[in-house]
Amino acid sequence: MSQSTYTVQGMTCGHCVQSVTEEVGALSGVSHVEVDLPTGLVTITSDSDLSEADVRTAVTEAGYQLAS
Amino acid sequence: MSQSTYTVQGMTCGHCVQSVTEEVGALSGVSHVEVDLPTGLVTITSDSDLSEADVRTAVTEAGYQLAS
Repeated sequence: MSQSTYTVQGMTCGHCVQSVTEEVGALSGVSHVEVDLPTGLVTITSDSDLSEADVRTAVTEAGYQLAS
Repeated sequence: MSQSTYTVQGMTCGHCVQSVTEEVGALSGVSHVEVDLPTGLVTITSDSDLSEADVRTAVTEAGYQLAS
């Protein structure tokens, strides 16, 4: 089990949270995604280490951006 | 053809616009719904006059509120 945290910019409502959760949750090995809307913090639990590139792609596909 | 305009509060992103458009668009007789996100203005085109109560119910079901 591995846990990683990212900051996502641009989420404004529950629908945004849902979109990000769905896209990130669809990454191979991800078992849980938790999003805190006010801070933009996304905590990902996965079976193995995820690459930041994969997370970035998922977040972008959802329509948002990883911070820096 | 009848056109009416309402102000909806609480929409913050494109998903919100989509939710309101879908719920209002499902009202009987509605042929077109246009939402301006920055102002919250929702313009509804329908075959006959809509009751404000029906519009209010649809907006509430989408998770938002009609202004006063």
